[in-house]
Amino acid sequence: MSVRCFVLALFLGLDLAHSEDPLPSWRETAPKKAILSFVERVTKPGSSDFVSIPERIAAFDNDGTLWCEQPCYFQGFFVVSRIRALASAHPEWSDQEPFASVLKGDLKAALAGGEKALDKLIMASHAGMTSDEFAQIVAEWLNSAKHPTYGRPFTECVYQPMLELLDYLRSRQFKTFIVSGGGVEFIRGFAEKTYGIPPEQVIGNSIKTRFEMREGKPVIVREAEIDFIDDGPGKPVGIAKFMGRRPLMAFGNSDGDLQMLQYTTSSDKPHLALLVHHTDPVREYAYDRQSPIGKLDKALDVAEAEHWVVVSMKDDWSAIFPPPK
Amino acid sequence: MSVRCFVLALFLGLDLAHSEDPLPSWRETAPKKAILSFVERVTKPGSSDFVSIPERIAAFDNDGTLWCEQPCYFQGFFVVSRIRALASAHPEWSDQEPFASVLKGDLKAALAGGEKALDKLIMASHAGMTSDEFAQIVAEWLNSAKHPTYGRPFTECVYQPMLELLDYLRSRQFKTFIVSGGGVEFIRGFAEKTYGIPPEQVIGNSIKTRFEMREGKPVIVREAEIDFIDDGPGKPVGIAKFMGRRPLMAFGNSDGDLQMLQYTTSSDKPHLALLVHHTDPVREYAYDRQSPIGKLDKALDVAEAEHWVVVSMKDDWSAIFPPPK
Repeated sequence: MSVRCFVLALFLGLDLAHSEDPLPSWRETAPKKAILSFVERVTKPGSSDFVSIPERIAAFDNDGTLWCEQPCYFQGFFVVSRIRALASAHPEWSDQEPFASVLKGDLKAALAGGEKALDKLIMASHAGMTSDEFAQIVAEWLNSAKHPTYGRPFTECVYQPMLELLDYLRSRQFKTFIVSGGGVEFIRGFAEKTYGIPPEQVIGNSIKTRFEMREGKPVIVREAEIDFIDDGPGKPVGIAKFMGRRPLMAFGNSDGDLQMLQYTTSSDKPHLALLVHHTDPVREYAYDRQSPIGKLDKALDVAEAEHWVVVSMKDDWSAIFPPPK
Repeated sequence: MSVRCFVLALFLGLDLAHSEDPLPSWRETAPKKAILSFVERVTKPGSSDFVSIPERIAAFDNDGTLWCEQPCYFQGFFVVSRIRALASAHPEWSDQEPFASVLKGDLKAALAGGEKALDKLIMASHAGMTSDEFAQIVAEWLNSAKHPTYGRPFTECVYQPMLELLDYLRSRQFKTFIVSGGGVEFIRGFAEKTYGIPPEQVIGNSIKTRFEMREGKPVIVREAEIDFIDDGPGKPVGIAKFMGRRPLMAFGNSDGDLQMLQYTTSSDKPHLALLVHHTDPVREYAYDRQSPIGKLDKALDVAEAEHWVVVSMKDDWSAIFPPPK
């Protein structure tokens, strides 16, 4: 190919790339149009709403926004699996709640003890090891565990339209962050491979850690004490703490995301807030105001009043999950 | 220009860019060679030590590593300035320590109260306002305050060789982070403009904050309680918390950086640890084992034993500060 042809092909290639649909799993309905026109508006040089590259930050909730959260937060399955794996080293658990109920498979009874019971389960499964050891445990679980209904690895129960959205935003020089009420080290175990989001762009719940020298090797030890809860009003606090500025775009699906969306839309820069509404009982799940998991009630009212973008999974997404691998 | 010439110029341009010295203020001594050869080793495709782009993370201490820390941490000058500005609203300070001594200009007496006194000064100057208000206060101070010896803005008392190093690493697709024992929101006030480091890549000390709606507007309010101390063993803890993985390169200048450097060099990836040794009483300051500020004692011994790179400011840097603006 001559240099002239090469340069021509290059320009044509660029042009083609831009005319391709970046969001093929989004139907041609209002949410897709809102996203495309917003991104166009803030990234087009010369636009009055142009935003410089370093300020292009998009924040995504994880459970129910990037991946499924039914019939139970996926991290809950991880906790149960860990408790079972550790049971032989803890014979006392057979008659100690909430462990006894977990081992009998009765989660409802296990969680009857409320937050205290949940705390005990989380600390027993998430603390006491080094960060490197915990990362290894999470990796092994992710490689073997499967979703009870879909029968595929949890990391494949992610929403195809959101994967496309993440890619599209990054192609427009957005930095994509996760801001989740799940455990930060748990999410970091798959976010880079699954979503293309590096560990330093994951914000979530954390337990305290300490630095220690073990046999001459420095390690980070995970302690059985809550450090930070990144949920509800904790989400803007987490954003301020980790990012130090407001995102331009925020995506959520439940009341736990309300304050993050309010904080994002209070910026004097252009901004977009979006809620994923689970309306598809056939392809996924349908739930909102009454759901114990991912309850969407107050945030739905605010979204209507504030004209935030609300995605109906049933109507606005042509695909839910990626094709099986 | 013909297309052919254009393409030729492009290639020549690339070549020229690569043959230019990326670190002109570093003398041709061992530290410069160590940095250049390390970066070459980990970024050259096909090299057995090649490291993928997402893992190229470099962590920099701030005080004494990126900018000067004498005759006092610069944030100390900010605290004094704030206490003075707030004094008229606090008549009780005129006979209350440590405020009374600060207002009389006797810092030594003010700090005789130890950590408790320092805490009082920090909380009085750093808490009680929203994050946005605090950012505004820091910006105004940075715009007006000057270094007592150099007579230039504090943001110009930064080390020219380190500015070049930051640029060089970023040109090789490294993400540059600050990991500082200074206040995170204070540093975020200048890190992007001064160092090219965005707020989300600054890790530092923090106080607790809470989310609040004020007149219908969501704000982050700064509370008078320590949240996290990012110094000494706190640095690897901060790295694990904010980055979630070990940096490839770490740069410090004092015992407060020891554990960060140990943590970095315990990685099974290629790694480089570097200490800036303040050895230049003429162009800057000379201090190490006995200094109350930026004490470098234990870390210097470990650096020698572990063959870390030690930069002598006097011998290895041809320039200290950037030319005056």
